[in-house]
Amino acid sequence: MNAVELIRKKRNGESLTSSEIQFLIDSYLKKNIPDYQFSAFLMAVYFKGMNENEQSALTNAMINSGVVVNLKDIIGVKVDKHSTGGVGDKTSLIIAPIAAAAGVKVPMISGRGLGHSGGTLDKLEAIPGFRTNLSLKEYKTVLKKCGAVLIGQTKEIAPADKLIYALRDVTATVESIPLITGSIMSKKMAEGIDGLVLDVKTGSGAFMSKEKDALKLADSLIRTAKSFNKKVIAFITDMNQPLGNYIGNWFEVYESIKVLQGENVPDLLELCLNLAGAMIYLGKKADSVEEGKKISLELIRNGKAFNKFTEIVKLQNGDVSYLYKPEKYPKSKYSEKIYSAKSGYLSSINNYEIGMAALELGAGRKTKEDKIDPKAGIIFYQKIGNQISKNDVIAEVFTDYKHSLNTAVKKISDSLEFSKNKVSKPKLVKRILT
Amino acid sequence: MNAVELIRKKRNGESLTSSEIQFLIDSYLKKNIPDYQFSAFLMAVYFKGMNENEQSALTNAMINSGVVVNLKDIIGVKVDKHSTGGVGDKTSLIIAPIAAAAGVKVPMISGRGLGHSGGTLDKLEAIPGFRTNLSLKEYKTVLKKCGAVLIGQTKEIAPADKLIYALRDVTATVESIPLITGSIMSKKMAEGIDGLVLDVKTGSGAFMSKEKDALKLADSLIRTAKSFNKKVIAFITDMNQPLGNYIGNWFEVYESIKVLQGENVPDLLELCLNLAGAMIYLGKKADSVEEGKKISLELIRNGKAFNKFTEIVKLQNGDVSYLYKPEKYPKSKYSEKIYSAKSGYLSSINNYEIGMAALELGAGRKTKEDKIDPKAGIIFYQKIGNQISKNDVIAEVFTDYKHSLNTAVKKISDSLEFSKNKVSKPKLVKRILT
Repeated sequence: MNAVELIRKKRNGESLTSSEIQFLIDSYLKKNIPDYQFSAFLMAVYFKGMNENEQSALTNAMINSGVVVNLKDIIGVKVDKHSTGGVGDKTSLIIAPIAAAAGVKVPMISGRGLGHSGGTLDKLEAIPGFRTNLSLKEYKTVLKKCGAVLIGQTKEIAPADKLIYALRDVTATVESIPLITGSIMSKKMAEGIDGLVLDVKTGSGAFMSKEKDALKLADSLIRTAKSFNKKVIAFITDMNQPLGNYIGNWFEVYESIKVLQGENVPDLLELCLNLAGAMIYLGKKADSVEEGKKISLELIRNGKAFNKFTEIVKLQNGDVSYLYKPEKYPKSKYSEKIYSAKSGYLSSINNYEIGMAALELGAGRKTKEDKIDPKAGIIFYQKIGNQISKNDVIAEVFTDYKHSLNTAVKKISDSLEFSKNKVSKPKLVKRILT
Repeated sequence: MNAVELIRKKRNGESLTSSEIQFLIDSYLKKNIPDYQFSAFLMAVYFKGMNENEQSALTNAMINSGVVVNLKDIIGVKVDKHSTGGVGDKTSLIIAPIAAAAGVKVPMISGRGLGHSGGTLDKLEAIPGFRTNLSLKEYKTVLKKCGAVLIGQTKEIAPADKLIYALRDVTATVESIPLITGSIMSKKMAEGIDGLVLDVKTGSGAFMSKEKDALKLADSLIRTAKSFNKKVIAFITDMNQPLGNYIGNWFEVYESIKVLQGENVPDLLELCLNLAGAMIYLGKKADSVEEGKKISLELIRNGKAFNKFTEIVKLQNGDVSYLYKPEKYPKSKYSEKIYSAKSGYLSSINNYEIGMAALELGAGRKTKEDKIDPKAGIIFYQKIGNQISKNDVIAEVFTDYKHSLNTAVKKISDSLEFSKNKVSKPKLVKRILT
C-alpha cells in the first residue's frame, strides 16, 4: 500500500478497505505519511465522502490510536451526551448530575470553546479550583464514587483525532461529515460507554446551520454508534437563539445552578429534561424517554440533582461554596445594557454574532492560546417571538475590557431583526432520531 | 488574505481573484504557505477546476516566479511545439530542424521521460557529447546562430512549476486540467515565444487516454495561450500505438535521421509534416498549414532539414559523426525477436505497456534518479490494421539486462489483440483546433 495510490482511489470516488484506512491513520500517526499527503487525502474525503464501512474503519482506527478506557469494573450502564455546540449551551452541567442521581453512570469527556461556541470544560473551570485534567485513574475513581465525572480529552484517548483535527483546522477540511463523525465518535467510543445521547444543533448559532446538514450528521453519528453496538438517541435542536438567558462561563454555571435548584428557564429546562430523560432511558433506569423526563423533573424538585452536582464539583476539587452562594463570585468591571431601538416582534437573531460578541467580551478564544475571562458574558433577556417595545432591555454585557463594550453592543444590536407581525416561537426539539 | 480562507473559497466552488492566486503561488514559493496547505488547495482545484481568469492568473504567477527570457534581439518569429508525450514520439528532433530551415526561430525547452513516456532530452543526450543543460546565454547564442536550440528546463524558468509538480506527484493531483495547463504554459510562455504548436495525444499510450479529456486539455491550453496573446494551433493525435517503428533513445534519434534523410515512415512523417507545417505557418513563413507542409517536405527532399539538424547538434557539442554513420553506434548485448502467436488483423495495442516494456529494457526510468541506457529499446514492426500470420515478427527488443528480456517480451505479447475481421487503421490526426 502506498499513500498516493490511496489518495487517488478516494479522489476517484472508489471506496477504501478497512485495512487501507487503518494503514493511512497508523502511518500518519507514526509520521510515515507526511502532512501534505494526509491533507490531500482529507480534501478528497471532503469531496467524495465515506460509506458506512469506511466510516466505521476510520472511527475504529482513530479509537485504536490510543487507549480504550475499560469501565467494566464500574457497575451500571454508562451513558454520555455529546452536543455539536452552540451559544449558551450549558446542558452538560445540568444533565450529568440528573442522570447520575437517577443511577446512570455518566463518564463525560468534553471539549473547550473555540470561536463563537462555548465549551463545557471552560464553564466547569469557572468554578474556582475545579480540575478537568484528571488522569484516567482519577477519572475512574470519581465516576465510581459519585456516578459522574466531567473531564477533558486526555493524551491517551484517540491521539489520532488531535493530530487530524489540527490539520483539518488549517486546510479547510473541518466541514466534512465523515471527518466530524470520526472525530466525535472516536473519542466517545474510547470512553468506555454503553450508550450515547446526541444533541445536534441547527440554526444560526450552530456548526451545521442548515437542518438538512444537521440531519445528515445525526444520521452518520447514529449509524457509526450502532456499528460499535452502542445504544444511541439523537435530538435535532434549535440554535437560532441562545439557550437559556446566560452566555459566558461563570454565567452558565450560575444558570445551571438555578435550573438544578428548580428555577424554570423554559427552553433550557425543556432541552435538559429531554436529554437527561434519554440518558436515563438508555441507562435502563426508565422504560421510555418520557418516563426519564418525569424522573429528571422529580430529581430537580427533590434536590437530588443539585446535591449530585455539588458532589461532583467537590470530588473534582471545585469550591462548592460558590454553588451555594453564587453571588459572591467576582463581577466584571464594566457592564452595559442594550435597549431596543425598535418596537415589534423579535423575529430573528444572528446567533453566531451573539457568540462572537461574548468572545469579544472575554468569554471565548480567538486562538487556542488565548486566555478566557470566566466572569465575562452576556445576559440575553429576550426570545424570538417576544413582543418588544422601543427602549426595552434586550441584553446586558459584562467585561473587564472597556474597549470591547462598543464592539459587543454593536454586534448584538446588529444581529437582531424585528417584524411588525406576530412571530411564532421556533420549535426547540425539532426531531428525535434513533 | 490567509491560506485557509482561500482553500475554503476554492473548495466551495467560488472563483479566486488574480491577486489571491498570486498570493498563494508567491507565498508557497517563499515557504510562507506550508506543503500541507498547498496540497489541500491543489486537491480543491482538482475537484472544482478553474475559470479562464483563474487559469491565466495561475499561469502568470508561475511564469513570474522566475525569469522570462527576452528574445527580442533575435530577429524572426519564435515558435515552439509541445507534446503531451507518448511512445516513440520523436517529432521534436525532426520538426525543430525543418522549421528552423524554413526560417522560423525555434527556442525549444523540453523534458525528460518518466514512466512509460519518453523525453526529448534523453533522446538528444543519446547523441555522444550532446549538451542539453545550456545556460540561458548559450541558449540564446545557439538560437541566434542556427535558428533552433533544444534544451532542458533551467532553474531560472518557472521555478514554481518545479515545486508544485513535485507536490502534485505525491498527492494524486497530477490529473487536473488547470494544473496541467499551468505547468505546461508557464514554461512555454517564459521561453520568449510568439507562437506554439500543441500535440495533445489520446489513446492507450497517452497521458489523457480519452479523446474527450484530450479535447478539454487542448481547449484549456489554447485559451491560456491566447490570454497571453500567443498564436496557437493544437493537434489531437492518436497514441494507440507507437509513433514510427523505433522506441528507445538512440533508436529514436536513428529513426529521426532516417526521416530527415527522406525515408518514408508513414505515420511519423505525416505527423511531422503537420506539426512542422503549423510551426512554419505560425512563424509567418507560409500562408497556411498546408503550404507549411509542402515547404517541410521540400526541406527534407533538398537535404536542408538534415543539414540544419547536424548544425544544431554540432553547436550543442554533439558528435555529428554518429549522424552520418549511425551504424557505428554501440549495440545492446542482448536482443530477441517477438513472433506472433496468432494469425489475424492486429486490432489493438496496449501502448502504455509497450512504453513500460521499453522502460524495463533500460530505455526509461522507474524513479527520477534511475540512469537510462541510450541503446536499449524496441523496434516495433507492425501497425494496427496489419494482416499478420502466425510466426510473423511483431517486434524486436534490445537490452544489456538479460533478466529484462522475458518481462519485456511478455509485456509486448500480452499487449496485443487480434481480430479475424479486417480492422481499419486509426486516424492519426484526429482534430486540428485553433
